[in-house]
Amino acid sequence: MITSPDNAQLKLIRKLQRKKAREETGLFAAEGEDLVEAAADAGWDAEVLLRSGEDVEPELLDRVSSLGSGSRVVGIYRMRWSEARGDLSVYLHGVGDPGNVGAVIRSAHALCDGPVILGPGCADPFSPKAVRASMGSVFARPPARSPFGELIGAKVALDAGAKTKLGTGPLAVAAPLVLCVGAEREGLPADLAAAADLAVAIPLRDGGPESLNAAMAATVGLYELANRISADV
Amino acid sequence: MITSPDNAQLKLIRKLQRKKAREETGLFAAEGEDLVEAAADAGWDAEVLLRSGEDVEPELLDRVSSLGSGSRVVGIYRMRWSEARGDLSVYLHGVGDPGNVGAVIRSAHALCDGPVILGPGCADPFSPKAVRASMGSVFARPPARSPFGELIGAKVALDAGAKTKLGTGPLAVAAPLVLCVGAEREGLPADLAAAADLAVAIPLRDGGPESLNAAMAATVGLYELANRISADV
Repeated sequence: MITSPDNAQLKLIRKLQRKKAREETGLFAAEGEDLVEAAADAGWDAEVLLRSGEDVEPELLDRVSSLGSGSRVVGIYRMRWSEARGDLSVYLHGVGDPGNVGAVIRSAHALCDGPVILGPGCADPFSPKAVRASMGSVFARPPARSPFGELIGAKVALDAGAKTKLGTGPLAVAAPLVLCVGAEREGLPADLAAAADLAVAIPLRDGGPESLNAAMAATVGLYELANRISADV
Repeated sequence: MITSPDNAQLKLIRKLQRKKAREETGLFAAEGEDLVEAAADAGWDAEVLLRSGEDVEPELLDRVSSLGSGSRVVGIYRMRWSEARGDLSVYLHGVGDPGNVGAVIRSAHALCDGPVILGPGCADPFSPKAVRASMGSVFARPPARSPFGELIGAKVALDAGAKTKLGTGPLAVAAPLVLCVGAEREGLPADLAAAADLAVAIPLRDGGPESLNAAMAATVGLYELANRISADV
């Protein structure tokens, strides 16, 4: 039973809240029974697993928690990355909010066979907030990393200004598909959008917001493309 | 220029972070230039508007901010509610996360003509987090409140167990439609799902998460139903 706040494992958990420490160690922490269970279900062994009241005094674990409420269990895991391939995957560019990155990891796990592929400017998928938002899907379907130019398959850019509206008419491209989603206001950089095989817009009403939240847009795109692919079979 | 932390307007801004204070006063606060601008664009007059460095000392405004970073402007507004009607609207039941409620308010503003209708157990749409997540759509399209039994139109329940998959085959109901979305794990209560005119599931892959995030599910549902309605015209 850990009874000292100076314990090295506790210090490591706290350190891993910082991106620099995650990059240096290749480790990240997951808090809470749901996430630790999701890791085990996906076959991940924890490097360190601390249960409140069993392995560590509850108060000490609470103090290193990234949650306001404290956690009953915290696991430390070694990062893994997927290959950037699949019939349908999603590439994110400049999506800086960790909650959005985590949410898209969950949506991709639910809707397609490929991973979330992270381009430049994206939030760290192994930050506490992203891991939480993924609801454990970060373990079952770890993200991938790839430059836009090396993506495999037909690139479908979500672009608010595109003339082709998503969900209307047949799709001009066949799987493997990579849905490409940019930052919420800026969208994809113009050169990337121009290099895509197809640009589509989610039909939005006049007078409303110019865009959906980036995670919402990615999820709608994955839903629509997944339905199109399965209808083709 | 306000120079005292005991100023009544500053105290009110801080108080309005609490739901009880919002309920008692009927007021809520919006922080930041984007939100205050969205309010003005939608024709809302602020009851109080404090600009950092003009109306109040920056440090004092920072101290009452609900954001970590402080705000350059904070407005206090009187809550408004919409009528629960439209060709397409969305009813939320037990969606307790304010970020999700705010995100659906934004999605509904982008995708359909009706408001977000809040049933029991939903987060306060006028909390700081919900207002922020709405990106100002809470002003342009204020939420409505209604019991499930009084919803106007055909009720389309999102239900993970439904045999009818969203996006496959023609829709058996015509507008006005109300998409009904429950809490993330529990879904809609069984009696409500049974009372709906149609139950549909978002097609999810085997072995993945049992559900999408509630805001993602609502957005996908609105996207699909909006496309179906416009294709019928």
